[in-house]
Amino acid sequence: MVLDLSAAKKSLIVNHHQEISMGILTMNCGSSTLKFDLFESSDESNSTTHVAWGNIDTIGNSSGSPLHFNSEAGSRESMDVILNHGEAAKIVLEWLESAQMNQRIDAIGHRIVHGGRRFVDPTIIDESVIKEIEKLKSLAPLHNNAALLAIYACRKKLGDGLPMVGVFDTAFFRKLPMHASMYAIPHEIASKHHIQRYGFHGIAHRYMTEYYASLRSIQLDEVNVITLHLGAGCSAVAVMGGYAVDTSMGFTPLEGLMMGTRSGDLDPSLVGYISHQEGLRVDQVEKILNKSSGLLGVSGRSADMRELLHAEGEGDKRSALAVEMFCYRVRKYIGAYLTVLGGAQAVIFGGGIGENSPEVRARICRGMEWCGMILDAERNLSPYDFQGQISREESPVRILAVRVNEGSVIANDTRKYVTDQRLEERRNF
Amino acid sequence: MVLDLSAAKKSLIVNHHQEISMGILTMNCGSSTLKFDLFESSDESNSTTHVAWGNIDTIGNSSGSPLHFNSEAGSRESMDVILNHGEAAKIVLEWLESAQMNQRIDAIGHRIVHGGRRFVDPTIIDESVIKEIEKLKSLAPLHNNAALLAIYACRKKLGDGLPMVGVFDTAFFRKLPMHASMYAIPHEIASKHHIQRYGFHGIAHRYMTEYYASLRSIQLDEVNVITLHLGAGCSAVAVMGGYAVDTSMGFTPLEGLMMGTRSGDLDPSLVGYISHQEGLRVDQVEKILNKSSGLLGVSGRSADMRELLHAEGEGDKRSALAVEMFCYRVRKYIGAYLTVLGGAQAVIFGGGIGENSPEVRARICRGMEWCGMILDAERNLSPYDFQGQISREESPVRILAVRVNEGSVIANDTRKYVTDQRLEERRNF
Repeated sequence: MVLDLSAAKKSLIVNHHQEISMGILTMNCGSSTLKFDLFESSDESNSTTHVAWGNIDTIGNSSGSPLHFNSEAGSRESMDVILNHGEAAKIVLEWLESAQMNQRIDAIGHRIVHGGRRFVDPTIIDESVIKEIEKLKSLAPLHNNAALLAIYACRKKLGDGLPMVGVFDTAFFRKLPMHASMYAIPHEIASKHHIQRYGFHGIAHRYMTEYYASLRSIQLDEVNVITLHLGAGCSAVAVMGGYAVDTSMGFTPLEGLMMGTRSGDLDPSLVGYISHQEGLRVDQVEKILNKSSGLLGVSGRSADMRELLHAEGEGDKRSALAVEMFCYRVRKYIGAYLTVLGGAQAVIFGGGIGENSPEVRARICRGMEWCGMILDAERNLSPYDFQGQISREESPVRILAVRVNEGSVIANDTRKYVTDQRLEERRNF
Repeated sequence: MVLDLSAAKKSLIVNHHQEISMGILTMNCGSSTLKFDLFESSDESNSTTHVAWGNIDTIGNSSGSPLHFNSEAGSRESMDVILNHGEAAKIVLEWLESAQMNQRIDAIGHRIVHGGRRFVDPTIIDESVIKEIEKLKSLAPLHNNAALLAIYACRKKLGDGLPMVGVFDTAFFRKLPMHASMYAIPHEIASKHHIQRYGFHGIAHRYMTEYYASLRSIQLDEVNVITLHLGAGCSAVAVMGGYAVDTSMGFTPLEGLMMGTRSGDLDPSLVGYISHQEGLRVDQVEKILNKSSGLLGVSGRSADMRELLHAEGEGDKRSALAVEMFCYRVRKYIGAYLTVLGGAQAVIFGGGIGENSPEVRARICRGMEWCGMILDAERNLSPYDFQGQISREESPVRILAVRVNEGSVIANDTRKYVTDQRLEERRNF
């Protein structure tokens, strides 16, 4: 891993001549998943250890949620009925407790999807912040509520004294220029209801951006790339000078690329048209667009790209159409963002599909030679043998696949925030 | 004009050794406008004359609609209260009658915006076709109804005997591949309600495509270009082999580029969100997105690009933002369609803004050198002195401005259809 905690720590030591050892738990709630990581940094060895990690999937599924927990001390695999993210967080903390790891936690970093306009930097989670995050629930109902439930569970289990830091997915998009962030709707309505493009998956896109800077040994503000997070949710970002200047997800995570079960871009008239034709309320139509559309809706078979590629191989036409639509739309966003950037240094693939499907990467890159993207077919099959570099040496635009590690970004931010606070306190003492 | 009726006529004569003289009236109904042209072809001189033309704007405005009619015999300028397109068509026909031109009409060609899945070729307008067009009203309420009212008025005035031909704006998009035409919504819903990308402004995009083929003396199936129709409504098309392979307008003319009063692309969640927050019905939200958004909504000042450029010059920030958003979004579509085409031969500007605003063309082309679009700043100021060619000689991608003449396309199609029918009848006799 190129970006690890020791880098952040070293810089702290250099800057402050202060040695701080710290255990940081990160919690990353998706709409139906929870991932956690426990990192511990040792002052003597000046290194960071990944002491525990794991994930719970399909939270809320009445037939059970699979657990995969790992630590230095042992692992746990099971299938439990877990109703919500609060219960999921509780199970994680109980497991850490049983392995005597709870007392090693000095701070918790939570990924929070929607920071609205207020939260652009890592922020200590206190009562007033919790209230603000609660207010933002309407903007990202599936995600922000999940994080809140996990936050409540952590407080209940570990007490108010333990610092918890919110790291916001929307923060990476804070420098979006107005011509990219505003919708072409009446100014009064946009202003009154804070309607703008917020962007999502910011931590993942930031990881890819920082990875590229590190790989190329350039400063972050020298990075002009297109990052593609292709997983169950999908988003594309144009990164200029190390920051997002445009992104495909907008006011909500529904807009943009085609996803597992989300439609992505759509004629806005279709919401009312489907509502009228099908006799459904608008919130029911939105549920269809979020839960039954995308790869699943077009194929009628699965939201899972691997299954669709397999079905396509067996001659299933609707699966083939779903895959082709998915790749075609990614290509169009690459073209649009090349224009935004005036050409890019690299196109970077991340996320479950982006990291693991050479077939999808190859299809997206097919026919892109006109703009300087030349894929190396062999490297594409085993990117991580080449630090993720899957373009040919002579390719004017580099192509990369990167194993995105959101946990390390959240932990770095949390660690830095808490360390800075402590140093501040000592200075003020 | 490069594409005129004489070309179509010559090919008929060559093909059929049959000389046919014909007067053709075309009617082109926009959502609040009506344009007409009367073309007459003379067999002896083998030429086509534009004998009358004119337009009525802001139809339905209770404070009056301006009329501009011209003919060999004289002209008329006035401001009349005209409630709908039926009345507008009646006024045109009465004026032609007063100038003794009605008897010179052998056929009428009507532009019809929405042909649904059925109408892909010019079609004689009979009872069954009228019923079908009526059925399609729900798909393009503003436009198809306008054309129908004009059709009824023509029948009433000139009788059932006069052939009327429908030329469909959607026809140019009939070869859209499925991965471009389908939305990522559940297959059953799309299939049941014929939900797909239909495309609009097809006649205008076809004119630009044919103009390019003619200018470069290449076959239509050799044309790979991006055409931009930028007027009150705006759309972008990727043309491959002479046909549209993707377009920004979709199921309705609301999707895609930012327009005078239409929002264009939007997070689909915003329809329900605005409805909920503002306490409006969805059809009221759609009215806002169609009538109060776009340049007008963002600037809060005007839907007219000329006024916004002027206001921007005087320091109005919201006008400047509206113009910048407009140009930025066109650039993104150019990038996306360059990707669709694997690079293009040319980017072609048409429509009121595209034809007449060097400033907007220049802003759209700014920073596009990376993909081979190099504007010639001087030519851009007077494109029609250079057959519309406004790129530098060395520009790998040509840039053009074209005065779009939908009337000539409608007349050509109508003439060809009627002529073919007559020849068919004679053969069968």
